[in-house]
Amino acid sequence: MQKKIALLGSTGSIGTQTLDVVARHPDRFRIVALAAGSRIGDLIAQARLFEPAIVSCARPGDVAALRAELPRSMRVLCGAAGLLTVAAESEADVVVAATDGAVAFEAVFAAVERGIRIAVANKELIVAAGELLVAAAQRSGAQIVPIDSEHSAIFQCLAGEPADRVASIVLTASGGPFWDWDVARIADASLGDALRHPTWQMGTKNTVDSASLMNKGLEVIEASRLFGVPAVQIDVLVHRTSVVHGFVVFTDGNVKAQLAPPDMRLPIGYALAYPDRLDDRARGSALAALGASAEASAATLVFAPPDLERFPCLGLAYEALRRGGTAPAALSAANEIAVAAFVRGELRFGAIAEVVRAVLADTPEELLTLDAVRTADRRARTLACKAVEARLVAPAKS
Amino acid sequence: MQKKIALLGSTGSIGTQTLDVVARHPDRFRIVALAAGSRIGDLIAQARLFEPAIVSCARPGDVAALRAELPRSMRVLCGAAGLLTVAAESEADVVVAATDGAVAFEAVFAAVERGIRIAVANKELIVAAGELLVAAAQRSGAQIVPIDSEHSAIFQCLAGEPADRVASIVLTASGGPFWDWDVARIADASLGDALRHPTWQMGTKNTVDSASLMNKGLEVIEASRLFGVPAVQIDVLVHRTSVVHGFVVFTDGNVKAQLAPPDMRLPIGYALAYPDRLDDRARGSALAALGASAEASAATLVFAPPDLERFPCLGLAYEALRRGGTAPAALSAANEIAVAAFVRGELRFGAIAEVVRAVLADTPEELLTLDAVRTADRRARTLACKAVEARLVAPAKS
Repeated sequence: MQKKIALLGSTGSIGTQTLDVVARHPDRFRIVALAAGSRIGDLIAQARLFEPAIVSCARPGDVAALRAELPRSMRVLCGAAGLLTVAAESEADVVVAATDGAVAFEAVFAAVERGIRIAVANKELIVAAGELLVAAAQRSGAQIVPIDSEHSAIFQCLAGEPADRVASIVLTASGGPFWDWDVARIADASLGDALRHPTWQMGTKNTVDSASLMNKGLEVIEASRLFGVPAVQIDVLVHRTSVVHGFVVFTDGNVKAQLAPPDMRLPIGYALAYPDRLDDRARGSALAALGASAEASAATLVFAPPDLERFPCLGLAYEALRRGGTAPAALSAANEIAVAAFVRGELRFGAIAEVVRAVLADTPEELLTLDAVRTADRRARTLACKAVEARLVAPAKS
Repeated sequence: MQKKIALLGSTGSIGTQTLDVVARHPDRFRIVALAAGSRIGDLIAQARLFEPAIVSCARPGDVAALRAELPRSMRVLCGAAGLLTVAAESEADVVVAATDGAVAFEAVFAAVERGIRIAVANKELIVAAGELLVAAAQRSGAQIVPIDSEHSAIFQCLAGEPADRVASIVLTASGGPFWDWDVARIADASLGDALRHPTWQMGTKNTVDSASLMNKGLEVIEASRLFGVPAVQIDVLVHRTSVVHGFVVFTDGNVKAQLAPPDMRLPIGYALAYPDRLDDRARGSALAALGASAEASAATLVFAPPDLERFPCLGLAYEALRRGGTAPAALSAANEIAVAAFVRGELRFGAIAEVVRAVLADTPEELLTLDAVRTADRRARTLACKAVEARLVAPAKS
């Protein structure tokens, strides 16, 4: 039976790779709704190819262009109401949440309330409001299946396992480009340095977060929310080659690990096909399955603990997770502001952690509600902007 | 609920470790029947401790001693009829098949016909008659759960997975003590050399088989039978530290691996508790879960393909698996005779493979029935004895 897919964020990196997977498996998947932000030309091309019933864009000003270019039978919508319709009124079996930031929170919650599957690539959503989302899914029977490769790894290792037998979860980290740099060199790293990620191709924000290990910190919070495991049971190991994405240590001493090439279409395909798996690979060698190149005579996998002194963002994320409430939302929002300032050249790389630490210190303890998350997000952005201003670097002479 | 366990081969290595697991989890498991061969003193001590309803020994001559030493309420039996009663008439929920060789074949088949769980450590049984056993289990609804660490690894990786999405299975091998020896040195290796296994403590036969890689060959055949996967989809990788026991490559390109310390009580406990897991470990570090010692600053896992030229037994096992029918039974029986001759000092290590090859060459193609397995086993032993005689080494001067 074909699964009907609604895709939030169709023109981004995860969105286009989701469409790749759907295009390769037309017998299994069909796109019923697409939502995108500003890349209207891409959205038009996607809609022509996949023929969804509903198409939604961010800005009212783009609706006319979409209507002009697309068949009349397609509903063209926009803004928050459009996202909501795509997620919750498109009769999708699976909603892929691949937007950035907080824009799709309402739409995703509405989909969760319908009790369908949500394939989540939106890290901020799980970090800021994961507990609320998981609780809502438990009430409605919705399945939340992660797309992030590390969380897909853990999800795959937990398939068929008793949920109460997890001793600990381990997420691997590539370590980013600064893994073997000293603290002073990291503090003054340039944007170009930060964008040299060893294994994955990602967007700018994610790549900078990988360099600071904040990305891994957000993933630790995400893992805690998705799998119901506290901070003390989640570890990070640096594994430069990103072959193993994560493992689960069970209470009986057995360990299960998941490995895959660094291709996001694998966790996307898994999230769509679960509990089945797609059938689309030629058989490679056993060494290739361990990430070895065709010429290699052996595969070697190395793991080491991260250094929290040189990478304070990871420790700040653990702190936010231990505090709970709206602290993770504040951490994520503050980091977004700080990274944007670093990308614009206004902040030193080493000051990203300082901004986040300052914002966390000013974030009160609060119970988690969706309103509290919104308030905490706004407050953290304001605080972060002030913290950035206090640390502005002189503009580079060009 | 307590599971009732019947144990065939209670005084051997797997048998005593099974009793360890049961003793640590009296709330979950209870021994209802014990069968052992010749270690009557051990059997008496076990029966007093675990208070089974039925106790069985191999020889009629030992029955009187057992009756004298054990409470009258215990039924004391012997021989094939005793094994049969222990396996199939003890009302066990799980029968642990931990005898060596062919002695318990009938008893295990009788247990399979009752539709209960069989936890199998008896390699010869699966190699010689695995297809028949699996077919019988499918008819009766019996579960066959492996105890061998490599097969437990694969079984664990397959939990919760669609059976038809396996692209390949990979078993790891320690490589044994001769892994980096040249072919001439291996050919003249002594028994003392062969018994220096790098990672596992096992019986003499298994340790010699590990040195020749025949052990891994038998495991390849076992994996094919247990998981319904042909020879071409089963690979072996040498992994000296025996941390990873096996992995499964799925058709979608994802890979799942299982890791555990080299302690047979882990796969035994899993086979008893499945689909649950036991809860009996203190939490170690993430590196420790990857086999690193407490002082290590990193964990490194290395994998390399085996060398079939220096280890021809592995290739012979693949050949027997591809031929099918009674060829695996003949391979296993011939190897047993050859290894026994090597242990007695009558055969060079390098001649073990020659004997097995000669027997396989003389084994006709046959359909698999339990009678054909028995005939093939007897014929292979006779042929192997002749092949050994033709290769006798001069007795060592002592």
